[in-house]
Amino acid sequence: MRNGRPIVNSILLMLLFAAISQAQSIVSPDGRFSLSFKLIENGIPTYQLSFNGAPVIRESRLAIETKEVPSFIDGFSIETIDTSSIDETWEPVLGEVKQIKNMYCELAVTLIQYQHNRKLILRFRLFNDGLGFRYEFPVQPALTYFTLLDERTEFNLTGDHTAFWIPGDYDMNEYLYRTTPLSRVDATKGMSGKEIAARTVISPIAVQSPIMLKSADGLYINIFEAALSDYPAMNLMVDFGKMGLLSHLVPNALDHSAYLQTPAKTPWRTVIVAQRAADILTSKMILNLNEPSVIRDPSWIKPMKYVGIWWEMHVGWSTWRYADTNNIKLKGLDWKHIIPNGKHGATTERTKRYIDFAAKHGFDAVLVEGWNVGWEDWFGKWKEDVFDFVTPYPDFDVAELQRYAREKGVKMIMHHETSGSVTNYERRMDSAYSFMKAYGYDAVKSGYVGKIIPRGEYHDGQWMVNHYIRAVEKAAEYKIMVDMHEPVRPTGLQRTYPNWLASEAARGMEYSAWNPGNPPEHETILPFTRLMGGPMDYTPGIFRIKLDYTEQRKKEHVPTTLARQLALYVTLYSPLQMAADLPENYEEKLDAFQFIKDVSLDWDDTRILEAEPGEYITIARKTKNKESWFLGAITDENARTASLPLSFLDPNRNYVAVVYADAPTAHYLKNPSAYTITKYLVTNNTVLRLKLAPGGGTAVSFVPATVQNEQQLKHYK
Amino acid sequence: MRNGRPIVNSILLMLLFAAISQAQSIVSPDGRFSLSFKLIENGIPTYQLSFNGAPVIRESRLAIETKEVPSFIDGFSIETIDTSSIDETWEPVLGEVKQIKNMYCELAVTLIQYQHNRKLILRFRLFNDGLGFRYEFPVQPALTYFTLLDERTEFNLTGDHTAFWIPGDYDMNEYLYRTTPLSRVDATKGMSGKEIAARTVISPIAVQSPIMLKSADGLYINIFEAALSDYPAMNLMVDFGKMGLLSHLVPNALDHSAYLQTPAKTPWRTVIVAQRAADILTSKMILNLNEPSVIRDPSWIKPMKYVGIWWEMHVGWSTWRYADTNNIKLKGLDWKHIIPNGKHGATTERTKRYIDFAAKHGFDAVLVEGWNVGWEDWFGKWKEDVFDFVTPYPDFDVAELQRYAREKGVKMIMHHETSGSVTNYERRMDSAYSFMKAYGYDAVKSGYVGKIIPRGEYHDGQWMVNHYIRAVEKAAEYKIMVDMHEPVRPTGLQRTYPNWLASEAARGMEYSAWNPGNPPEHETILPFTRLMGGPMDYTPGIFRIKLDYTEQRKKEHVPTTLARQLALYVTLYSPLQMAADLPENYEEKLDAFQFIKDVSLDWDDTRILEAEPGEYITIARKTKNKESWFLGAITDENARTASLPLSFLDPNRNYVAVVYADAPTAHYLKNPSAYTITKYLVTNNTVLRLKLAPGGGTAVSFVPATVQNEQQLKHYK
Repeated sequence: MRNGRPIVNSILLMLLFAAISQAQSIVSPDGRFSLSFKLIENGIPTYQLSFNGAPVIRESRLAIETKEVPSFIDGFSIETIDTSSIDETWEPVLGEVKQIKNMYCELAVTLIQYQHNRKLILRFRLFNDGLGFRYEFPVQPALTYFTLLDERTEFNLTGDHTAFWIPGDYDMNEYLYRTTPLSRVDATKGMSGKEIAARTVISPIAVQSPIMLKSADGLYINIFEAALSDYPAMNLMVDFGKMGLLSHLVPNALDHSAYLQTPAKTPWRTVIVAQRAADILTSKMILNLNEPSVIRDPSWIKPMKYVGIWWEMHVGWSTWRYADTNNIKLKGLDWKHIIPNGKHGATTERTKRYIDFAAKHGFDAVLVEGWNVGWEDWFGKWKEDVFDFVTPYPDFDVAELQRYAREKGVKMIMHHETSGSVTNYERRMDSAYSFMKAYGYDAVKSGYVGKIIPRGEYHDGQWMVNHYIRAVEKAAEYKIMVDMHEPVRPTGLQRTYPNWLASEAARGMEYSAWNPGNPPEHETILPFTRLMGGPMDYTPGIFRIKLDYTEQRKKEHVPTTLARQLALYVTLYSPLQMAADLPENYEEKLDAFQFIKDVSLDWDDTRILEAEPGEYITIARKTKNKESWFLGAITDENARTASLPLSFLDPNRNYVAVVYADAPTAHYLKNPSAYTITKYLVTNNTVLRLKLAPGGGTAVSFVPATVQNEQQLKHYK
Repeated sequence: MRNGRPIVNSILLMLLFAAISQAQSIVSPDGRFSLSFKLIENGIPTYQLSFNGAPVIRESRLAIETKEVPSFIDGFSIETIDTSSIDETWEPVLGEVKQIKNMYCELAVTLIQYQHNRKLILRFRLFNDGLGFRYEFPVQPALTYFTLLDERTEFNLTGDHTAFWIPGDYDMNEYLYRTTPLSRVDATKGMSGKEIAARTVISPIAVQSPIMLKSADGLYINIFEAALSDYPAMNLMVDFGKMGLLSHLVPNALDHSAYLQTPAKTPWRTVIVAQRAADILTSKMILNLNEPSVIRDPSWIKPMKYVGIWWEMHVGWSTWRYADTNNIKLKGLDWKHIIPNGKHGATTERTKRYIDFAAKHGFDAVLVEGWNVGWEDWFGKWKEDVFDFVTPYPDFDVAELQRYAREKGVKMIMHHETSGSVTNYERRMDSAYSFMKAYGYDAVKSGYVGKIIPRGEYHDGQWMVNHYIRAVEKAAEYKIMVDMHEPVRPTGLQRTYPNWLASEAARGMEYSAWNPGNPPEHETILPFTRLMGGPMDYTPGIFRIKLDYTEQRKKEHVPTTLARQLALYVTLYSPLQMAADLPENYEEKLDAFQFIKDVSLDWDDTRILEAEPGEYITIARKTKNKESWFLGAITDENARTASLPLSFLDPNRNYVAVVYADAPTAHYLKNPSAYTITKYLVTNNTVLRLKLAPGGGTAVSFVPATVQNEQQLKHYK
């Protein structure tokens, strides 16, 4: 929905046969940012970005290396300069806020390489929260099809900033973040993590985008990309000499990066800048740089809270696979001759247990992993026909479960693990989605664990980037919502494809089922990095923190307090949220579980109350179309106290606040399960005192008070 | 259909912990061939093949190189030896003969590598026409999934034989044959041919299989493979030192050759040996080594004679493309804004012209190429979404043509050019085949011109080998017959998939639409090489031999005589035959065209009357379930005379022979279009004198004479 009207100021400068030495500049609507474009010697295009009068990105070159045609590096003259500005608002289908303001000034520079009779447009959009820019290749006689070898966009910084980074990798983003000065980046050493997906680390100096930076004088800078489509993901190479970052695209088997056909454009390259870390999280620039929804009637797209048969496999309580054989061929498979291992998770009976639990506690849906044949030897074997997505194990009765779930008013979430065999998935996608609809499934969790087939393609290359979008587009044809695991990192495409509810694309809670798990700081960095691109299916809500399901792992545990698990539902935004633990474990702590039952998934408003990457985050959100608010606060491995004015609340009401806090003795390693639950009356004048244990958190629900509440409850003091 | 019963003589020798030095041998049913297997030093498996007491293949090693597991090269002991024999006959759905005899002695050697606790079976089948053998990997604890780097099967020969060869190539088989001693093979120099498909020449010493050899003492040897499935094609590297050939498999982007899962097997490696060249062509060993048909009811599979909109594009009379733009995007394509070039071939009107012609002359079907959008920029651009296979050009009315063709009793043949973008084709295959059935198409000509997507795969690698079979299997689900162009060379799989009517997979007639065309010897070599694996859609029948359709090509012409074009319908076996020329050109020579109308496509019997690769071939075939015979004779660039006893004819009948011969002055370069047509009465005592012009041929039809014929016609003298 557009409330504003574009205001176009076009300055058309025909500067033929003239080298331009003076810069072309624009400023952001609020005047704080300044972007200038300049051709330097040999007609090389460059840009600079300043904030409050000081440079943030020093002179940085813009270049594209190509194969069959001359590269777009130098020899440019300016043909035309166009400027314009936009001020509009729009409403996301699902989101952190009801309305999003899209306001920027734009500079579009049409460059010409006379030597090759070729044009290139560089388009800059300067917002009040930073810069987005991209390369555009218009239709022209001398350029139709061309192959990109790499993109060489520079982001030259002003100092040796502190960086929150993970290694550049063509396949994998499930890493823990490291916090080092840029000059100390070494991406091939000492990286954590069990390899469950393919891993293709690029070089010691390569990091992934988004990268979060903090300058010595306290400026926060986030460098990323928006609207990644028909193009590979961008990694960043650290240039220690220039103290800058240089883009590097994910290649394919032929060492090509992208195949383009005019008119073509790159994704937007983004630089979000803020004096307060919280303002980085408030930025909606990534969404603003994406295209509006292509789904005209999104009424079938709903936020979903779900439980599922999943965590119990991670902790060793049950198995995805039905049998302990390791040699399955889908064609001609006869399960009569295969002996079950007796530990299969996705049985009809076990699924009914989850359906009953979901129905009782008001969950929308139940996910079941390991329901379909093929898990015996699904991974790491370069096998192409791993799953067919339509054949259940003999102990999983799809029709009966459809009937049972419908009777109980619960939806089922399908699981499609591709194991990276995407040619196989694409061949079977229509039959898989048809099967889903035939059995009443409206949502799918898809997975891309393992190396990609087509062999030689990577998870983050152009071919796979196109696949993810193709999968979501085809799902939309079937009115299916998608939760994608192990895809390329999101770049705001959920605006365009709102049925793309969430993605994983980072190290989620599952790693905490395996020693040593995600340290507390991980969840304070994720919003500044991975979540800049879109919702994450992090799957919080672990209540049985000791992983003593099996004898050999009885000393392991999730590095968290219980109260923190609740807070994550607010601090990690997603319209799709799992209560990841087993029903049995929730039933032991139904008082704390109440928060997960209550918490909303879709929001009118979001306030980043406090934030510092690697240290803490406190967020409050107002439920979409309701007066209730929810607050989540987490800290790193250090205890933390804070005083939070509840000024965001409606001044005309009293609210009942239910505070789920770490007990005074709580500690994420030593005493993780100690929590307190207290209820108060609060107003927007209340100042809430938070006391977070080391590795802990606090979750609070606020609902307008009833007369009865006001009689029974005390005001918070 | 099995008429015989297997006779099994099993000799089970448990020879544990013992190295075997004596050879294990079998002889062919007729005693002429002897195959011996032996482990040599270090437990290396070898085989030898003798014919009439003299070696044909000297001691040759058998080895497989693997990646994750130890290679299968040495350290073997013999565990068991099994011998058996088979004598049976079966009937192909379509074929050169009504019944095929399958008779062989088999030696199966189970080898064990004690060091790795691993088994390998080498299975040899010795027929009266030569040897087939393969590697088998049974299910076993120490071997489930493994990656092949290469296969190193040796074929060590007894001398510097004359070889008829084309370069080893991972993508392409559209070459002219070279005839040199093996020691003179140089596959990277001086190769002819316009590159219409991708070309990936391997090395100077690599040649393709099948390779045809002739020894100094006149023995004919054909080395090839049968039943290529889930495995890459085999090329052969010439070992000048050993004077042998060494297998080399087509790799993929990762330099892997094949991914196998036990139980697994390689295709059969074949050595066909004969004293007469004709007996090489008579061999049915390749078919016998393939599996029986998987199609239970093949009643919908029919031979087809067709005309089509195709040659007129090759000669420049019309175009595949509708417009002369070079930048089409399927998504959002609006043809209203695109100006037609006025030369588009596949118009509704032009198609009706072909339908009328086909109906009038009794053809089964009409092929139309260039009917669907995408031809403007279909090739050589690494474009993935080239065609959607369901969107006709605006001037091609699919529904109207369905109606018109049905009314005229003619079938339409669909065309699916993938341009090598196989990921795109696989995604759209169901909708493409559904579209065909909706519009009454029962057969598809598919094409794979260009480099393969998935990028890094080759036409002849394992992934594509599996694709071709997948396409044919899916076509069978829709009861669709397939004519495949630019696939891997056939290896007899038409026995298993009889809806796979024909393939191109070699340099066909289309090259003669472009200077300098296929020299006459090409068609005398094809039956000894490419056609050993299965029918070829060569598309003969060119009547307008001068290519004077356009001013710039008016001096070009097809290197053939007209009579030769008729003979090719008999000498190049296929149940799918095109009359490739334009209706207008046939209408000018309806007398000669009568042979194409008359000639059969499916046969009770085939007699190779004379044959010498590179020189001449004369074949007679008896129509399936009818008494008529057809004869074709062709020569190389030299004139040829021959006396042919017609002893194959039924001794109890007179026949009318219509002889379509080169005129006395005919010459494939100087006077190609001069032909004579004469009619005689003949019997099985007649000796027909053939007189073939340089580059010429003779075609003869024989039908049982009527009383009227016997009164009106003279006996041949």
